[in-house]
Amino acid sequence: MNLYLLCGLVGVFALIFALVLGKGINSKSAGNERMKELAGYIQDGAMAFLKREYFYLAIFVGAVCVLILLTLGWQTAIAFVVGAIFSIFAGYFGMRIATSANVRTAEAARHGQKGALEIAFSGGAVMGMSVVGLGILGVSILYTAFDYNVVYLTGFGLGASSIALFARVGGGIYTKAADVGADLVGKVEAGIPEDDPRNPAVIADNVGDNVGDVAGMGADLFESYVGSLISAITLGTAAMAAGIESLNDKAAIFFPFLLLAAGIVASVVGILIARKSKADNPQKALDSGTYIGGIIVIIISAVLSKMLFGGFTAFIAVLVGLVVGMLIGKITEIYTSADYKHVTNIAEQSQTGAATNIISGLAVGMKSTMIPIILIAIGVLVSFYVMGGNTNATFGLYGIALSAIGMLSITGLTVAVDAYGPIADNAGGIAEMAGLPKEVRQITDKLDSVGNTTAAIGKGFAIGSAALTSLALFAAFAQAAKITNIDLLEPITLVGLLIGAMLPFIFGALTMESVSKAANEMIEEVRRQFKTIPGIMEGKGKPDYAKCVDISTTAALKEMMLPGIIAIVSPIGIGLLLGAEALGGFLGGAVASGVLVAIFMANSGGAWDNAKKYIELGNFGGKGSETHKAGVVGDTVGDPFKDTSGPSMNILIKLMTIVSLVFAPLIAEYGGILLNLIK
Amino acid sequence: MNLYLLCGLVGVFALIFALVLGKGINSKSAGNERMKELAGYIQDGAMAFLKREYFYLAIFVGAVCVLILLTLGWQTAIAFVVGAIFSIFAGYFGMRIATSANVRTAEAARHGQKGALEIAFSGGAVMGMSVVGLGILGVSILYTAFDYNVVYLTGFGLGASSIALFARVGGGIYTKAADVGADLVGKVEAGIPEDDPRNPAVIADNVGDNVGDVAGMGADLFESYVGSLISAITLGTAAMAAGIESLNDKAAIFFPFLLLAAGIVASVVGILIARKSKADNPQKALDSGTYIGGIIVIIISAVLSKMLFGGFTAFIAVLVGLVVGMLIGKITEIYTSADYKHVTNIAEQSQTGAATNIISGLAVGMKSTMIPIILIAIGVLVSFYVMGGNTNATFGLYGIALSAIGMLSITGLTVAVDAYGPIADNAGGIAEMAGLPKEVRQITDKLDSVGNTTAAIGKGFAIGSAALTSLALFAAFAQAAKITNIDLLEPITLVGLLIGAMLPFIFGALTMESVSKAANEMIEEVRRQFKTIPGIMEGKGKPDYAKCVDISTTAALKEMMLPGIIAIVSPIGIGLLLGAEALGGFLGGAVASGVLVAIFMANSGGAWDNAKKYIELGNFGGKGSETHKAGVVGDTVGDPFKDTSGPSMNILIKLMTIVSLVFAPLIAEYGGILLNLIK
Repeated sequence: MNLYLLCGLVGVFALIFALVLGKGINSKSAGNERMKELAGYIQDGAMAFLKREYFYLAIFVGAVCVLILLTLGWQTAIAFVVGAIFSIFAGYFGMRIATSANVRTAEAARHGQKGALEIAFSGGAVMGMSVVGLGILGVSILYTAFDYNVVYLTGFGLGASSIALFARVGGGIYTKAADVGADLVGKVEAGIPEDDPRNPAVIADNVGDNVGDVAGMGADLFESYVGSLISAITLGTAAMAAGIESLNDKAAIFFPFLLLAAGIVASVVGILIARKSKADNPQKALDSGTYIGGIIVIIISAVLSKMLFGGFTAFIAVLVGLVVGMLIGKITEIYTSADYKHVTNIAEQSQTGAATNIISGLAVGMKSTMIPIILIAIGVLVSFYVMGGNTNATFGLYGIALSAIGMLSITGLTVAVDAYGPIADNAGGIAEMAGLPKEVRQITDKLDSVGNTTAAIGKGFAIGSAALTSLALFAAFAQAAKITNIDLLEPITLVGLLIGAMLPFIFGALTMESVSKAANEMIEEVRRQFKTIPGIMEGKGKPDYAKCVDISTTAALKEMMLPGIIAIVSPIGIGLLLGAEALGGFLGGAVASGVLVAIFMANSGGAWDNAKKYIELGNFGGKGSETHKAGVVGDTVGDPFKDTSGPSMNILIKLMTIVSLVFAPLIAEYGGILLNLIK
Repeated sequence: MNLYLLCGLVGVFALIFALVLGKGINSKSAGNERMKELAGYIQDGAMAFLKREYFYLAIFVGAVCVLILLTLGWQTAIAFVVGAIFSIFAGYFGMRIATSANVRTAEAARHGQKGALEIAFSGGAVMGMSVVGLGILGVSILYTAFDYNVVYLTGFGLGASSIALFARVGGGIYTKAADVGADLVGKVEAGIPEDDPRNPAVIADNVGDNVGDVAGMGADLFESYVGSLISAITLGTAAMAAGIESLNDKAAIFFPFLLLAAGIVASVVGILIARKSKADNPQKALDSGTYIGGIIVIIISAVLSKMLFGGFTAFIAVLVGLVVGMLIGKITEIYTSADYKHVTNIAEQSQTGAATNIISGLAVGMKSTMIPIILIAIGVLVSFYVMGGNTNATFGLYGIALSAIGMLSITGLTVAVDAYGPIADNAGGIAEMAGLPKEVRQITDKLDSVGNTTAAIGKGFAIGSAALTSLALFAAFAQAAKITNIDLLEPITLVGLLIGAMLPFIFGALTMESVSKAANEMIEEVRRQFKTIPGIMEGKGKPDYAKCVDISTTAALKEMMLPGIIAIVSPIGIGLLLGAEALGGFLGGAVASGVLVAIFMANSGGAWDNAKKYIELGNFGGKGSETHKAGVVGDTVGDPFKDTSGPSMNILIKLMTIVSLVFAPLIAEYGGILLNLIK
């Protein structure tokens, strides 16, 4: 048994912990018959989506597997399939438990907030532990099995990325189509409240929370997690070959493995503390867990740094990543929470109508890019130079990978806190649909509102980690493609940069349009049901929930094809046609523009959402006023911004860099066909 | 007399031609007393804006001049001041004539379309000829005076760029504040028609057309014009030193000068043809002039290429630029004209409300970035490799500069066609305000609608030329800063790239917010006047036009400060703190992201505008319907998109590259202070 497999065992420990948590949740009461029935619809809908998705995934994974077999060999192909399967498992576990925890949270809320918080958060923790457990387990097994050859490992990352694409983009389209459809016809046209069981799209809407916010987010961070580990191993191998100073001849590989394993332990401690917190305020409970988890990781990383490298430079690189991640989360909150002036300004601007609401929301999102970018820049520079990038660039690039590892070390906790939100949201939906007493809904609403803040922070964190992971993967790609220079003065690099920077805009347009198309279908179906099902408005006729679930599912799966193909084909195409250096420019452009568009769209959307809620609290006229109507317009535009297009950018930049990394040997050998013709 | 001064003489010829056209316009009747009065208000307002602007400009130019004197020497300082003054002159002449041609176009329209078209187009031609005449004259005189030392010439470009910043950003804020203010209170709240003389903001609105669309556009293209010439001289000098193959030892400098001189002659021919065209359709008249002008330039450039270089490679580089410019214009039309599905789709989506209108408009803008970027990429690659960039990179970079020259060779015509639109628009406004017969307004409306299409194409052209000019200036910067490599694998370059790519987002947010702020002030003032001036609604009380003009003026001048400072300080700051290579990455990121944001915003805005007009033609419910209201929301959001923030990006990327070029010697010597500390 080597050290990597020991770390893998920690992953197994995380999975066992998830299992225990899951059993604990399932042992709780699922409430009365009506609640069980409704929860059953949601779970069935979620599983129906997954089943259909797996069908397409099987075809996709099969096709890419053949492509890899033909071009790169069986080892990478196996790693790819394992990566895909592990990511699927993580999503499956998370969804399974989330759709079981939702109704039990509602039931527990009948007896008070504490029990409800515990179940909802445990549900999120299952997702978090599945992500990190499967992540470190998969990498450690494959790394050992392939005799410590990191090249094959990249296939694992590609597998994870591919599933993340389907989960994030498909999930994002699913959830927003259902949400917009349910709101527009139900709330606006028919005048019935949110989560009303008479609304045919209401189940699809609740399924969407799980599909998009639980499974999508989980797959996204699973990708970042394994991506950062793989890039750290790649760059660590190079750093050791270049003679990085250390006390152990495998220090540069041991360090990230041990750190992530320590992060899992720290996350478990944090989760236990948050679950058992006596704080009345759920936010405080979650915060206390996160802080303690973070502190544990920081201490362990300092110890590990001293033990393996004989100093604290590696520790500083890790610390910088962790701090940058947390600060980006905080900045996200400042730009998207009604406690700060940006959001209240949007609400104020809504008084002059929808147009001024839109303009100010767009402006807030655009402005909000500044500090995160500067933070990422500082993170890159500090981690590069502290590790000695000045002496040898390879050392510095390894430092950047370490800062990504630092940011992602407490992924288990981050995902737990994040996935807790949609579970609480679902619990509220079930409480409403099942007609539970008002006090129950108040408790779930309180949990949900905390969840909204954590979700915003989680989104910022996801973007930050995607940026650092992509940059680390980018450096790893250059290593693998054997290019030592990506010169912007070469027009071919510049052309790559322009095209790469363009792709996030195209991706944003495609995903927004997909949501529109899917939402339109949903709107028509809901209208049709209201018209044709007798007694539906009186609560006598039963709405056809399954039909709406089916529309969201079909639309999501259909619409994610084109963006998916673009994300995979374009880096390979650029590399083969214009060469590795153009591909380097392309990735640089794509990462820069992708991070910006991601922050812009996610924060605009979050700010609009909370501006509307701020108006609903009675400000500037309150609910039903013209100001509120303007606020609703912004919120509706913001839905695909923050839950579909924005988060999809994370996947886009990571997927394109890892595709480049996997196919780097091929591009190094055959790349630049068109360029050679021009020349 | 050298060849450059001869080319400068062609510039004098252009100015004389402008003078003759201007005299011709002024000799026409300015209509009845009421028309003269109204036109007087507009002209006074425009001149008041210019006067106030000049005051700030004087301070600004003085301050930068001192900075240059202290750091770079008196020659660059003089060139800077001359560049600023020449740009100011061009704007002044153009505005002066535009505000004189508007009322005469209205008067001529009483007697038929042909005369009206001739005056409006002649007015635009004065602006076009002023731009190219002063541009080539200034560069040729300074180049000769400084004994053919191109380094000092960059100051001229910086002067032009600085004024363009004020004209484009300030003008954009001015025109949209007035437009939104006039529309929102006048049309929506008070229910009076557009261009109604009872509306206090109506004069400011008409002034805005001149300030933004005539002077702003003119300064923008003046900057591109001289910027492309200066970069061609810089890179041509380097190419000759590197031994580019030619039949004349100054071929690489002679060629761009002669080509632009030929372009002026071709533009004059094109203008004369368009003016005297017998076509009933004004679009055809303008097109015929443009095509013939283009063909003349193409033929001459082939001849010059053969004469100076002994072959057609330089010709191909020029041709590629010209074709790319025209195609980008055409693509812009496809994405923003109601003759194509993108715009009608937006109109269709407006049926489900403002939110879907906004989402589809944003998606159209984002999608529309693809083809222009690919066209620019093709232009860069073809012009680089055809000139032998493969053998020697310097030759290839010179080729890129030539393609920018090619695109800008018929600037005289492009500006003429472009500035014609706002003159026709103004004429319609005056006709409406003066109560002229309906037939007059129909004619000006027809001229105006053609102007809208040409404006969209002109915007595409301005973006394309800004992109190519910036890339050429970027290459010139690298030469001047003596860097031979801008390596994206260096984290410092990557950090520069991220920060550079971020700036257009910040710039976009700031300019949008400025429009909002200024428009809000305008709205309050118009409301106040409606409330407090007795008899204003009955047409008896006289609105205080001057007050509204003053609000727009003050707001525009105040709000352009911060964006202006950012654009000038940030490249110098990055260069001094992080070094020339980081600045290179910064410029690469800024140009890529700036071009994308520019296309996105300009085309979203244009598409929303025409979607609204398409609905007003009676589609999907027509005027007054809910669909129309949704369309108005999109149009209002689109106003700052297409007329303020979008076009400001052109300035931003050119200004930042030329600032870097001018201060390159300083940065090469002292740059990287912070970086050296970190290391």
